Amino acid sequence: MSLQPPIADTDLRRASLCQLLHWLAAGRVQPTMLAEVYLKAIERLNPQLNAYVEFSPAMTRDQARSAEHRRRERIIGRLDGIPIALKDNFDVAGLPTRAGLPYGGRAAEHDAHVVARLRASGAVLTGKTNMDEGALGAVTDNPHFGPTHNPHRRDYTAGGSSGGAAAAVASGLAVAAIGSDSLGSIRIPASYCGVFALKPTQGEISARGMIPAARWLDTAGLLARSVDDLTVLLQVLAGYDADDPRSRRRRVALSPPDWEPGKLRCGVLPNLPALGVRPEVIEVFDAALAKLDRELGERRKVDFEDWHFARGRRAGLLLMEAEMLVTFAPQLADAEHPVSPRFRDLLDYARHKTAADYAQAERVLDAAALKMRRLFAQVDVLVMPTTPQGAFPLGGPVPDSQADLTSFASLAGCPAMSIPMGTLPDGLPIGMQLVGARGSDLRLLELAAVWSATLDAAPEYPVLA
Amino acid sequence: MSLQPPIADTDLRRASLCQLLHWLAAGRVQPTMLAEVYLKAIERLNPQLNAYVEFSPAMTRDQARSAEHRRRERIIGRLDGIPIALKDNFDVAGLPTRAGLPYGGRAAEHDAHVVARLRASGAVLTGKTNMDEGALGAVTDNPHFGPTHNPHRRDYTAGGSSGGAAAAVASGLAVAAIGSDSLGSIRIPASYCGVFALKPTQGEISARGMIPAARWLDTAGLLARSVDDLTVLLQVLAGYDADDPRSRRRRVALSPPDWEPGKLRCGVLPNLPALGVRPEVIEVFDAALAKLDRELGERRKVDFEDWHFARGRRAGLLLMEAEMLVTFAPQLADAEHPVSPRFRDLLDYARHKTAADYAQAERVLDAAALKMRRLFAQVDVLVMPTTPQGAFPLGGPVPDSQADLTSFASLAGCPAMSIPMGTLPDGLPIGMQLVGARGSDLRLLELAAVWSATLDAAPEYPVLA
Repeated sequence: MSLQPPIADTDLRRASLCQLLHWLAAGRVQPTMLAEVYLKAIERLNPQLNAYVEFSPAMTRDQARSAEHRRRERIIGRLDGIPIALKDNFDVAGLPTRAGLPYGGRAAEHDAHVVARLRASGAVLTGKTNMDEGALGAVTDNPHFGPTHNPHRRDYTAGGSSGGAAAAVASGLAVAAIGSDSLGSIRIPASYCGVFALKPTQGEISARGMIPAARWLDTAGLLARSVDDLTVLLQVLAGYDADDPRSRRRRVALSPPDWEPGKLRCGVLPNLPALGVRPEVIEVFDAALAKLDRELGERRKVDFEDWHFARGRRAGLLLMEAEMLVTFAPQLADAEHPVSPRFRDLLDYARHKTAADYAQAERVLDAAALKMRRLFAQVDVLVMPTTPQGAFPLGGPVPDSQADLTSFASLAGCPAMSIPMGTLPDGLPIGMQLVGARGSDLRLLELAAVWSATLDAAPEYPVLA
Repeated sequence: MSLQPPIADTDLRRASLCQLLHWLAAGRVQPTMLAEVYLKAIERLNPQLNAYVEFSPAMTRDQARSAEHRRRERIIGRLDGIPIALKDNFDVAGLPTRAGLPYGGRAAEHDAHVVARLRASGAVLTGKTNMDEGALGAVTDNPHFGPTHNPHRRDYTAGGSSGGAAAAVASGLAVAAIGSDSLGSIRIPASYCGVFALKPTQGEISARGMIPAARWLDTAGLLARSVDDLTVLLQVLAGYDADDPRSRRRRVALSPPDWEPGKLRCGVLPNLPALGVRPEVIEVFDAALAKLDRELGERRKVDFEDWHFARGRRAGLLLMEAEMLVTFAPQLADAEHPVSPRFRDLLDYARHKTAADYAQAERVLDAAALKMRRLFAQVDVLVMPTTPQGAFPLGGPVPDSQADLTSFASLAGCPAMSIPMGTLPDGLPIGMQLVGARGSDLRLLELAAVWSATLDAAPEYPVLA
């Protein structure tokens, strides 16, 4: 037994994953106690936030007890006892995977690869989080499960499509969360909710058991309250999976960063207003760059004349919508559990697109891969705001441009992060995006750790105690 | 000057690339002399065979003179002085790239990557070879450029779509040829013409400057008169190209084979008749396996219950047809140089396919990749006939199944070879296909060299002197 004073519930809900691992190792908190703190918060706050669409206290307690037992036996997994949430488009054996659609269907037979890895590392799964219908959107105002509220301001969007996951992490209803990102679905809610996110290199984390949106773009992604937490999660989840055709042999997670901060070449876009980035976002971004001055190394304006951000996002959307017609064919045919008219309309748009339109859109993948290669021959990292604007009110107009800045990394298969960079005039957080060459995930994390320490811009997480 | 007797023209036209390199090094033949022998043969025989659709004696002589000069100066490229033909879907600066279509268009501005590498190695380009219209077909009975005849029997198909290339190699109108293979376009004509072919691992040879048919499937490929020739060509052509988005970092060409012949696990299909393979082909195949008995190591029947060969081929065809609507949009719109009704019909079929149909067909790529991984965990090489039948008469019915056995390796991105395995009752040659795991190209070549020596089944090449 520890002689130190107990840790307050609110601190347990604001602490980083790494801090909690430390407290668990020191015996200052036990897995079952930690699980109770999180369960209590979920039961009390989820009706307000609607971050989770499914949670089972019995299941969570059961896992926590096992973790506690292992800790006593000193057979301790990398994440033993850490409460982690999961977006509802990953299979958990015995639970339905709804992906934001009303179709109940059958329960999943097998755990998704990331779920199996989380379990093997001793993580305690808290539940499944809300998302846009079919992951097609960036608002998480789900017509079947209701909207997720931004923990920093009620009735504002948490972003999407992994909005429930980001809100759970920001509000202390999960220590970290696993979401998915096809054009920005991890990074956009991270930007709006003020949390840290990593979309790894395409193929680095197995997508087996994740509902496909657009398989050339889909990536499991990580949300947490510190950069170091993302590193731990990546180490647990990354690696080759022979059963995922897109999985690549492990090349990232074990390779050490090889950059020299003084010699960093940092790429910035020459004209953010032309890309539709709002003036108040540019102001926060410029202030952040000024604060990072020394860490940025050499700043280079990169040429993006040959890349049309909005067009890239639209091509990516077509790939998603067309593939969703295949993925969600059973749900679209299920008259008893109708999908929303909006979702049906979006997919109907793709229904009128031809195979040649798809082939044409897919060429954007090649263009992005070439752009990426040329770009990262000149710079080590590309920096920009994660989103052209911050969170906006639920129920109001939804800007088209939300994924404009995030889609490039998706199309190019690059790793990309979002880290909090400051606060907008309306008091809401906004993220900075870092994009690196394929396979440079650890380098990006190392850089983000240094920059985040300098920026010190993570908002106080509203645990709503 | 050599004191040895001169080599007969017919021997120069039947010799392997490696033999010719030896004779060139020994001074027994000079590049200009070799070029004249091939030029003379082309001028005399091409009107009968129609292997070439474009050749320029002046250009060929010019290159041969340069090669001769370099040999004198002892700055000798890997292929210095070797006459090599090129399928008409690779760009050669200053020449139109017609890909079997009538559209003249402008001359190509740049050499394709393979052409640049051939030039850098001192090869003497002889001309551009006939192919199916748009590379869509496996007969090389081109409505605009006429049929290519099988060198072993006039009025029989040479196969396709690289039919002109295979016929040129088999008839001594080129020492080797570079073609392309999306579902079997190198291997099928190699089987019918009795030459050796390698379709390398997807991305191993840059596809830059090759007209895209279906970019997930397209591979530059090699045709020659011996296995060793293919190895030399692969060494010259393989390697990373930063300007080809599908190019992969060199992993193949320099890695030595690591198989132990005695421990070889050789996969064979359990039921060739069910796949539509003709009895006379199975007879030749079984006789070849019997002859190879010792070299085959352990023979394992592999389970292909979960793979439908014809369905795989059809999915691949849809990917090709849809992408060709994009690639050939200018040609399809050019009323002055109309494409053939057959070609237009084939693409019209794709025009009525939706984006979702394309996404669905593309899933076959994932299925093939998984199948491939599981397969090559159990065997080192997969062996089967290259084609379900041999060459058939031009103008008669065309079997649908020509690419059924070759398309699997294309969809899975695996290296695959065709080597002559014997003669059909009608006297025409037929090939054996070897398929290996991605990246096992050199291993496959090593194996094919041993097997070919044992089989000794290459037909006498009909130089029609």
